[in-house]
Amino acid sequence: MNLEELKKSVRNIPDFPIPGIQFKDVTTLFKDSGNLKALTAELVKKYRNKGITKVVGIESRGFILGPIMALELGAGFVPIRKPGKLPAETFEETYEKEYGSDTIQIHKDALTSNDVVLIHDDLLATGGTMLAAYRLIKQMGVKNIYINFLIELEELKARELFPSGVEIDALIKFEI
Amino acid sequence: MNLEELKKSVRNIPDFPIPGIQFKDVTTLFKDSGNLKALTAELVKKYRNKGITKVVGIESRGFILGPIMALELGAGFVPIRKPGKLPAETFEETYEKEYGSDTIQIHKDALTSNDVVLIHDDLLATGGTMLAAYRLIKQMGVKNIYINFLIELEELKARELFPSGVEIDALIKFEI
Repeated sequence: MNLEELKKSVRNIPDFPIPGIQFKDVTTLFKDSGNLKALTAELVKKYRNKGITKVVGIESRGFILGPIMALELGAGFVPIRKPGKLPAETFEETYEKEYGSDTIQIHKDALTSNDVVLIHDDLLATGGTMLAAYRLIKQMGVKNIYINFLIELEELKARELFPSGVEIDALIKFEI
Repeated sequence: MNLEELKKSVRNIPDFPIPGIQFKDVTTLFKDSGNLKALTAELVKKYRNKGITKVVGIESRGFILGPIMALELGAGFVPIRKPGKLPAETFEETYEKEYGSDTIQIHKDALTSNDVVLIHDDLLATGGTMLAAYRLIKQMGVKNIYINFLIELEELKARELFPSGVEIDALIKFEI
């Protein structure tokens, strides 16, 4: 299976959740066992020689492939969650959205200075959540940070938000 | 690694989210790569000969191990989500909670009559959400349904809610 076939199995839903948005529905990709296997192999390929020790997944769709990547790479899995969900002490980061603001949290003891971290989320659109996740983890003083998405909406140019040295990868790219 | 060691790596958080609750924090289990690997091997062991074609994970903590089990079993992954998150047509089920009610949804085209389904969530406590998930999928007319949890709080006796023929398994058991 090649990437074009995987891309074709993402369902486009016009005007969801609001008019004008072309929603990329990955449930049609994940429900097929062959797709899930092929997708996993492609996703982890470029991280095999990076010495990743922790994969961080962002709630909640980053929980679907994050743990799979952790397992395949021999790393641990760490969740970033919405406020009030993580039960021990947390660091947090607040960021602005189109309407209002959002906060994400990570356990203080989730990462150490020896960790090489791969942050995963399913979709790079405006990039606000991932930028907040990157800043949150950067402040924790880990050894290195890589960023991965399943899908990138290229026309939104969200990569430009990140410092130039950060390695960002997305498996499937859509114009918008 | 044996089950007792995995169980010990679950962190107990007293009085979270409310006084009197002993919260089982699985983030300490998942962040260790050896634990994640051992845990996965144990979880899927008893489903290898069941012909599972789809693993259904319940948002959001059922998304962490559900897809891993799907991949290991050669099955597809299907999410059950809170209202408004799934973009295509859905079936839904509403259930009563201590205060008010909750609704869960699944895509109508996620399962077929040929599917053998394993429903996964991280914790069996009162059982309300899983019972709703079971009813939801039962109505879709699949071939067979298995139910799996990472953790079961045995004293709450939630197993008694389910029809007697349903095979329910939990890897790690706590008194409460």
